[in-house]
Amino acid sequence: MTKMQRIVLASRPDGQPSPENFRLESSYLSEAGPGEMQVRTIWMSLDPYMRGRMDDAKSYADPVPIDGTMEAGCVAEVMTSNNDRFAPGDIVVGPVGWASHGVTDGVGYRKVDASIAPISTALGVLGMPGMTAWVGLNDIGQAKAGETIVVSAATGAVGSLVGQLAKAKNMRVIGVAGGAEKCAYAVEELGYDVCLDHRAGDVKELRAQMAEAAPKGVDVYYENVGGKTLEAVLPLMNTFGRIPVCGMIAWYSGQGVAEAMRLPAAWRAILTKRLRVQGFIIFDHYDRVGAFASEVAPMVASGRIRYRESVTEGLENAPEAFMNLLKGGNFGKQLVRVGDDP
Amino acid sequence: MTKMQRIVLASRPDGQPSPENFRLESSYLSEAGPGEMQVRTIWMSLDPYMRGRMDDAKSYADPVPIDGTMEAGCVAEVMTSNNDRFAPGDIVVGPVGWASHGVTDGVGYRKVDASIAPISTALGVLGMPGMTAWVGLNDIGQAKAGETIVVSAATGAVGSLVGQLAKAKNMRVIGVAGGAEKCAYAVEELGYDVCLDHRAGDVKELRAQMAEAAPKGVDVYYENVGGKTLEAVLPLMNTFGRIPVCGMIAWYSGQGVAEAMRLPAAWRAILTKRLRVQGFIIFDHYDRVGAFASEVAPMVASGRIRYRESVTEGLENAPEAFMNLLKGGNFGKQLVRVGDDP
Repeated sequence: MTKMQRIVLASRPDGQPSPENFRLESSYLSEAGPGEMQVRTIWMSLDPYMRGRMDDAKSYADPVPIDGTMEAGCVAEVMTSNNDRFAPGDIVVGPVGWASHGVTDGVGYRKVDASIAPISTALGVLGMPGMTAWVGLNDIGQAKAGETIVVSAATGAVGSLVGQLAKAKNMRVIGVAGGAEKCAYAVEELGYDVCLDHRAGDVKELRAQMAEAAPKGVDVYYENVGGKTLEAVLPLMNTFGRIPVCGMIAWYSGQGVAEAMRLPAAWRAILTKRLRVQGFIIFDHYDRVGAFASEVAPMVASGRIRYRESVTEGLENAPEAFMNLLKGGNFGKQLVRVGDDP
Repeated sequence: MTKMQRIVLASRPDGQPSPENFRLESSYLSEAGPGEMQVRTIWMSLDPYMRGRMDDAKSYADPVPIDGTMEAGCVAEVMTSNNDRFAPGDIVVGPVGWASHGVTDGVGYRKVDASIAPISTALGVLGMPGMTAWVGLNDIGQAKAGETIVVSAATGAVGSLVGQLAKAKNMRVIGVAGGAEKCAYAVEELGYDVCLDHRAGDVKELRAQMAEAAPKGVDVYYENVGGKTLEAVLPLMNTFGRIPVCGMIAWYSGQGVAEAMRLPAAWRAILTKRLRVQGFIIFDHYDRVGAFASEVAPMVASGRIRYRESVTEGLENAPEAFMNLLKGGNFGKQLVRVGDDP
């Protein structure tokens, strides 16, 4: 019998999650039934969207039930398999959850080609965050050469790829990130033209810096955060600007709501500037995975696209890493090392 | 010498306009120079967008300067002409302004075909409001047969045509209007499936009525008003819903801002439901005028499309009619009768 661990949702948070909202449980791994396989987790992804699943609110996905295992995408190794698509030893990516092991029928799983890049990139630049960046920039944001883009959460798992892909398109690329270290990384390593530190001042100061960095105005605002950055950029949007809405991390846990701009000002900007504001969820765009992979995988393999990972060791430390992620304390794609490499 | 009258912007309003913001002036009509013509106004249009021009804020058009003539589209008769495109006796539609007469080089003017419908319709159902309705429904809203649409300001110049065109497309059409009389007209004369009175209750009551009227949710919300109606409809929007933003009359003069929902709630709806919110201004869509006219003019000529006009007599009464319009006191397309029919 294989011992396994998992982390469940113990209670729903009010605002920022706290350690009491999570509980580590131990059990034994079930046998694989017909068509099923057993997997062991190597890498687990932490992403801001998981905060939304902790609430009991209607969203695009059902909430995690109380005492249910927290959801996560993982890179895992197949241990035993009764499934025709997968064999023991295969490296796969799929929704194992916050768990050291899992039994699955393989739905939502795919094999990872370890020859292109380290297998952890299947959770980052070559996985869901990467595809989110690419679809949001191209399909939703309709970004074009010569335009100016502002990217919030500029060094995050999604934003860091948005910025690099935008530079590859010959756009003017302005990042917004939290802290001097991230801003320096955005400019020096990722190639942003400018990166502004949203922690360095209030909305007015951020807007003034942004206006200086974007002398021709802003054509695309890649929205990951809401909050202060949205307030700063909205008056700078050009006519016919686009705002792909990918996330709103500043608002997931209630930060900034007290000062949040009211809807009429945003609606006025949308109307007078004929903006297109469009929410999107990557699950609706899986038909674009081939086009994404054929463009981005070679750029990752050749080293043209850079990525950074923030690794937390051990499943038991996932709650703390997740709480830190929601505060912007991570630097690069947040991963949890759950098991050894094959 | 021809005596003429005009109404100028005496001062900028703070919130709702008041009579002191306007001033009636008399003068003599200038002679027409080379390429110019003299026109006399018959019908003048009053529209909510004019409120925006009274502010000194950056918008899609320059503000009216203090002591400048208020802007308006008018149907007029050509008196004398040195312009090759127009001859004395022609009926034209163009931006004469809040004035009994004007001298113009003809830019922005076109002839009106009086054989299709009464010439006043060139300011309404066959003019800018009509085209706004058609473009917003089809090009921006991407409305489809079988879907459910909510139309705010349902009996207004724009909304009344949106509702009728949506019914002609076999949509489920829910109107929102102010007062029982307008609601009865929307259902009985314009063919709305349901019309809700936003004055009859608070946001929660309006939302509950709307939910009952839209058992399959709302696919398109044609936004003319902002305010309470927007707050009611947003949680009822279906995944991939569209919100063409055409106006926000409830917010033009500050009403409802105190209670207005905050931006995070709207942003969350946009994200989780993958909504597309898009502002538009009819001036950007003049390339669609041919397609609009060929579809809608026959429907007006045959009587299939109904329209209603609210006529105020005399240019001097335009400020009062305009203030009434902003409060929703008009019923049908608001016109001012400035001069006699030819």
